[in-house]
Amino acid sequence: MNKYRTYKKDLDYSYTLGISLTIELLTYQSELVQLVYISTNTSYDGGVAKIIEMCQYKHIPVEFNDKIINILSPKQNCYAIGIFRKYELPIQVEKNHIVLVNPSDSGNLGTIIRTSLGFGIRNMAIIRPGVDVFDPKVIRSSMGAIFHVSIEYFDRFEDYIERFSNQDLYTFMLDAKMSIHDIKMTKKPFSLIFGNEAKGLDESYRNIGTSVIIPHQKDIDSLNLSIAVGIAEYEFTKYSINI
Amino acid sequence: MNKYRTYKKDLDYSYTLGISLTIELLTYQSELVQLVYISTNTSYDGGVAKIIEMCQYKHIPVEFNDKIINILSPKQNCYAIGIFRKYELPIQVEKNHIVLVNPSDSGNLGTIIRTSLGFGIRNMAIIRPGVDVFDPKVIRSSMGAIFHVSIEYFDRFEDYIERFSNQDLYTFMLDAKMSIHDIKMTKKPFSLIFGNEAKGLDESYRNIGTSVIIPHQKDIDSLNLSIAVGIAEYEFTKYSINI
Repeated sequence: MNKYRTYKKDLDYSYTLGISLTIELLTYQSELVQLVYISTNTSYDGGVAKIIEMCQYKHIPVEFNDKIINILSPKQNCYAIGIFRKYELPIQVEKNHIVLVNPSDSGNLGTIIRTSLGFGIRNMAIIRPGVDVFDPKVIRSSMGAIFHVSIEYFDRFEDYIERFSNQDLYTFMLDAKMSIHDIKMTKKPFSLIFGNEAKGLDESYRNIGTSVIIPHQKDIDSLNLSIAVGIAEYEFTKYSINI
Repeated sequence: MNKYRTYKKDLDYSYTLGISLTIELLTYQSELVQLVYISTNTSYDGGVAKIIEMCQYKHIPVEFNDKIINILSPKQNCYAIGIFRKYELPIQVEKNHIVLVNPSDSGNLGTIIRTSLGFGIRNMAIIRPGVDVFDPKVIRSSMGAIFHVSIEYFDRFEDYIERFSNQDLYTFMLDAKMSIHDIKMTKKPFSLIFGNEAKGLDESYRNIGTSVIIPHQKDIDSLNLSIAVGIAEYEFTKYSINI
């Protein structure tokens, strides 16, 4: 009998699909890993050998089971799956944050998590309703970055603001007061706040902190959410990235 | 008998999936449209009414045909499909260009086309092998921006360089000579050159023009291609966007 089923939001576990994601999981969140499935259709060298070694070292059970891999993996050619317990990672005060209000696209969310890590922003708030960060699609599109970033959900934007009252707030919207080119940053930690992919932030956000636009030509309605977040993170961290 | 089949690269036509994309097609490339299919499972007001009106005005045949819509559309809820003849749009001299060397992801390519249009860059070169711009997935992820941008394929990078010898060339790579923060632009048109999603540009590009890095933390290997292109376009057009 297979204990694990295809991912649903209400399950208390999720999983990594593929060898490199499973290695990321075992490297950074090994204490959460319950079981690793490995396909019998692969050679046991390279990444697979590394996974088996890591599991032995950390006393994590390994099972060779093609049937469950076919069930859990919507794609062909998946050779390893790491099952892990879902976790909560409260975001930190006095750090820079990304705040996503009602994000709805799992691929976008993964890309945003990865880009944020790339620009050193390791704290993300999601205002509900929002896509589930533990959806295997988000994990995959984050390319494992999800295991390095604290992500916390809030029922209301007000709940977020209440706890993080010392942040400089920047709301990204088309009907904004200021161009991103003209922002003068302070010494306080910042929160870059973005709305839903289709609708953006509503008018009520215009007077929260500083509303900001990334100027673009009128030929498009708006930039893709993950592109807008990437540009904002690039600009706001420009002089603080250590290379 | 249905004349049109599921898209393949060697067909001489492609199609837009959905109402808003079909309206974009009819607005900007109507002379290429051969036929519009409309679903019988929709009301004939709003976007559908607009499509029918545009087709009447431009003498484009309209067919109500659920069967072919189901064949051509991999997703449910597609109410209109516009079949159009593929075209070639040579890129222009004395304009800014994006050059993609061997791009392989259709969703990424669509997003890049859309972002480029947003930053006023309407000329794109693709060095073969590269994903097919007329793949309906590219058209969809470009959200119609593809109909506003000239895109030309080249067999070799050298062929591109030969024709566009007056461009300032910037090759984006991790092993670069200069940070994007330090670029001093000239008055010449620029070409921003990016490699494949997985492999980037190889070492041979390092001495072509100015090699540039977008600095990021070591926690990630590289930025997603569409994010890197977005940031580069943002920075290079920063003082020239008319809003």
